Amino acid sequence: MSTFKVLALYDFDGEPGSSEMSIKAEEILTITRTDVGEGWWEGLNSKGQSGLFPQAYVQRMKESPPAMPAPVYNQELDDNKQKSTEEEADWDDEWDNDDTYSEIGQGTNNRARESVYANEPNQNYVHGSNSNNTADIHVDNKGGTVSKKSLNRFSNYVKSGLESYMLGTLNQPTHGKKIHVYRDEQCLAVWEPLSNPYTVQVTSPKKATKMGGLKSFIAYSLTPSFSNIEVSRRYKHFDWLHDRMCDKFNIVAVPPLPDKQISGRYEEQFIEHRRVQLQEFVNYVCRHPVLSQCEVWYHFLTCTDEKQWKQGKRQAEKDPFVGANFCMSLESPEKELLQSDKDKIDDNLNYIVKMDQNVKKLMQTCQDQWNKCSNMYKREFHRIGESFFALGSSLDLDGKIPSEVATEVQQLGTVYMQIGRLYEDQARDHWQALSDKLYIYKGITSSIPDVLHLQKSSETKKRDCEKTIQNPLQLNDIRKRGDCLTYAVFAELNHFQMEKNTDLRLSMKTLLVDQIKFYKNIVGQLEDTLSRFN
Amino acid sequence: MSTFKVLALYDFDGEPGSSEMSIKAEEILTITRTDVGEGWWEGLNSKGQSGLFPQAYVQRMKESPPAMPAPVYNQELDDNKQKSTEEEADWDDEWDNDDTYSEIGQGTNNRARESVYANEPNQNYVHGSNSNNTADIHVDNKGGTVSKKSLNRFSNYVKSGLESYMLGTLNQPTHGKKIHVYRDEQCLAVWEPLSNPYTVQVTSPKKATKMGGLKSFIAYSLTPSFSNIEVSRRYKHFDWLHDRMCDKFNIVAVPPLPDKQISGRYEEQFIEHRRVQLQEFVNYVCRHPVLSQCEVWYHFLTCTDEKQWKQGKRQAEKDPFVGANFCMSLESPEKELLQSDKDKIDDNLNYIVKMDQNVKKLMQTCQDQWNKCSNMYKREFHRIGESFFALGSSLDLDGKIPSEVATEVQQLGTVYMQIGRLYEDQARDHWQALSDKLYIYKGITSSIPDVLHLQKSSETKKRDCEKTIQNPLQLNDIRKRGDCLTYAVFAELNHFQMEKNTDLRLSMKTLLVDQIKFYKNIVGQLEDTLSRFN
Repeated sequence: MSTFKVLALYDFDGEPGSSEMSIKAEEILTITRTDVGEGWWEGLNSKGQSGLFPQAYVQRMKESPPAMPAPVYNQELDDNKQKSTEEEADWDDEWDNDDTYSEIGQGTNNRARESVYANEPNQNYVHGSNSNNTADIHVDNKGGTVSKKSLNRFSNYVKSGLESYMLGTLNQPTHGKKIHVYRDEQCLAVWEPLSNPYTVQVTSPKKATKMGGLKSFIAYSLTPSFSNIEVSRRYKHFDWLHDRMCDKFNIVAVPPLPDKQISGRYEEQFIEHRRVQLQEFVNYVCRHPVLSQCEVWYHFLTCTDEKQWKQGKRQAEKDPFVGANFCMSLESPEKELLQSDKDKIDDNLNYIVKMDQNVKKLMQTCQDQWNKCSNMYKREFHRIGESFFALGSSLDLDGKIPSEVATEVQQLGTVYMQIGRLYEDQARDHWQALSDKLYIYKGITSSIPDVLHLQKSSETKKRDCEKTIQNPLQLNDIRKRGDCLTYAVFAELNHFQMEKNTDLRLSMKTLLVDQIKFYKNIVGQLEDTLSRFN
Repeated sequence: MSTFKVLALYDFDGEPGSSEMSIKAEEILTITRTDVGEGWWEGLNSKGQSGLFPQAYVQRMKESPPAMPAPVYNQELDDNKQKSTEEEADWDDEWDNDDTYSEIGQGTNNRARESVYANEPNQNYVHGSNSNNTADIHVDNKGGTVSKKSLNRFSNYVKSGLESYMLGTLNQPTHGKKIHVYRDEQCLAVWEPLSNPYTVQVTSPKKATKMGGLKSFIAYSLTPSFSNIEVSRRYKHFDWLHDRMCDKFNIVAVPPLPDKQISGRYEEQFIEHRRVQLQEFVNYVCRHPVLSQCEVWYHFLTCTDEKQWKQGKRQAEKDPFVGANFCMSLESPEKELLQSDKDKIDDNLNYIVKMDQNVKKLMQTCQDQWNKCSNMYKREFHRIGESFFALGSSLDLDGKIPSEVATEVQQLGTVYMQIGRLYEDQARDHWQALSDKLYIYKGITSSIPDVLHLQKSSETKKRDCEKTIQNPLQLNDIRKRGDCLTYAVFAELNHFQMEKNTDLRLSMKTLLVDQIKFYKNIVGQLEDTLSRFN
């Protein structure tokens, strides 16, 4: 391939002794290879040194703004036109084939990751960068989830289409709902509050079959409080919805769906747990002023007719207001933001990164306790109980029947075995409930830094423009769009803070209340046994 | 060596495919080797087959009663005469050299085990067979402690001197206290009850030094309730006392002393725990109608003068009423025992062997819980606490100080860490207390089968005599002595049953009460934390 020049946007410290090369921001480099893979490019610096550096850290030097991909909906429209007949035939198949589509991982997560690490900048797929969070859950349990993605921050930004948004090259939408951001004196910005808050109950997971029993799946009932009409949805429907939401909202943190799972999918315990996890997802969406109002979500919640469902599905997939285009529908306060306000993004970034690590750690602890309740603790108490019971039984062999002491010691054995069961039946659920809540917040805390980075990249872009663009009107528009984005990011941040302070806190309080009940139950059982000791 | 003939006393099933040979009771065998070791002899059966079998399962055939060793006190008297000057010089040294004498295992346990497994029958050392129990504690945790010794049941019997007792070849004591056994309609026999029950408090373990600080040791204070005069005793004094008691009482189960320990002997926790264990030993002795009345015990409890102590020590070591001779001081009911009464020994044997296994199992469970309270459980709760605290602390970074939710989550962390400490400070002690009690009972349940086997061997001897001895007066004496021994064994059995029903039961009740307090404490801590959640 022919060489071209790039401008380094950030400092990058190459690993000494490796093929990596350190680069400095504003250094000009000559690219010699773009097919290194995994997001790396090879290039020469001004001293003639050659090495690898992240593609995301450099920007191709051009006179005109970079040639951005056309907004995704145009592409998709074309694609859809071509594929529509084929797709209609595939529709049922795609939705039903649990083994290949929904559960094994051909869904959002892998797709999202692919695009984040893809080498070619001119791809059509525009997505929310937060959609790859769920897949990381069990990969790295030590630190936070966010660090890994920082390498691709800039390429995310370019791919997100927000650069085009900042430069004003996107078309103003002619229709569609406006999303309002209001100024708030304490936290700068809030989303327009929900005028009609509602809830949705996820209930009665049922195993159903199709094609004369050849294909089986689990269907969950969803009942929105505003309609009270039950709809039936499968995990793959949730997965599809989640994909749409991640595509659409790149400055809103979409809560994660429960992990995909291949084995044990039809086990009662797994199904009930997944129901609880889906309820958590639904709850977060319902309380979110933006997510809870979007069309695809309404469609998902209310559609009961198969034909309408298909129509809605196609429409959602053609939604023009996805990614950067979504930002075009934002209506933010006129008041210009101060630099000191914008600087708070950095504080929040540090805070969220730290919180992400700790949410992850606590979730791990909860999962651990949850597991130990059905295993280790139960086993320990069972062993204590067994030991007492065995001794009690052998005391009965001394011929003096009924032996009081034998009965008492056996009862002591029984109560400890019972306590073991309490761990499995009660304590286990307390930890699981908190773990499920933290799973949602872990998804959010690992997504929000991406949202904040998009804001930071936009700020950088704005400053770049101030150096190169002379037209004050054009510059003013860029500043306004930057502020609009920043307002929205602060609104999203604020929503998260509020949720954390009410929802997460409530879960902890619930754990405390449940644990008190649990230990009181133990006390009650032991007291009952004591009362039978003469 | 020249061959000689033996009579098989019991059935022995040789391990097929090994050099062992199965023998049948009453079979006559020709001994070809006595130096096989580990209690095995080699011999030929009537079919000319050769193989190994336990020496203890056969009896050398002679016309006259076997040549028994002279009662131990004569031997010891001689030994002591020869050694007296030397010993007086050694006295202090022996008592002070913690490293070589008292703690490393030159004490009772090794000596006792040696004699149980010794090949030569004509040894001088007469001992209580129960003195090797303490050494087994950590050797075989799976089954009971008694199985191992059954191999040597018969040799124990011969060595115990009880055969001589049964045959009436021991001298009637001319002085010394009589030990009374009374008939009881329900349990056949009881020891003469204590007329003046007393208690002894083991308190204030103190580290003391000798020889200008060169030698250091731990001294415990013992205060008997009948004198209220404190005496100071070291572990090695207890050990010496225990040796005397085991020598003296072969049909009384002497409770075990705590294990010897080399490392960590001066650590506070170890010292306090040993104090508790010694208190358990002292308690059992105090409540035992025979043990609590014996001279060496009184000497141990009351002597405060060093000279008198040495005198008493020498006297105790010369006590003529040890082992079989002790039985000469028994005064039992005249009423002849029925065969059906004596058959109860077997039921009791089965029962005690089963109980021994289960006491051991429960003790292991208690030790395990005790250990887990300071380690695993504490760690688990600490980890939970830490996770909450860390998250709470990171919630505080959002800039809104003071953050209520941060404080609450931190408090949740604190309470779980506190619960972890409760496990270490409280629950640990509950399990340790029961474990210490069970340690005593484990010693007893592993000793009593030996006591029962001595009775059974005496019965066998009596039946043998009925076949060979014609003199009805002589036979009547043998029967009387057999009954006397059986009465005493039933009295000891009954004492154990009573203790188990009151003392062991009380310990379990105490655990229950303590555990209720412990879990109530947890509830209280959690409720306190909840009250601080708004």
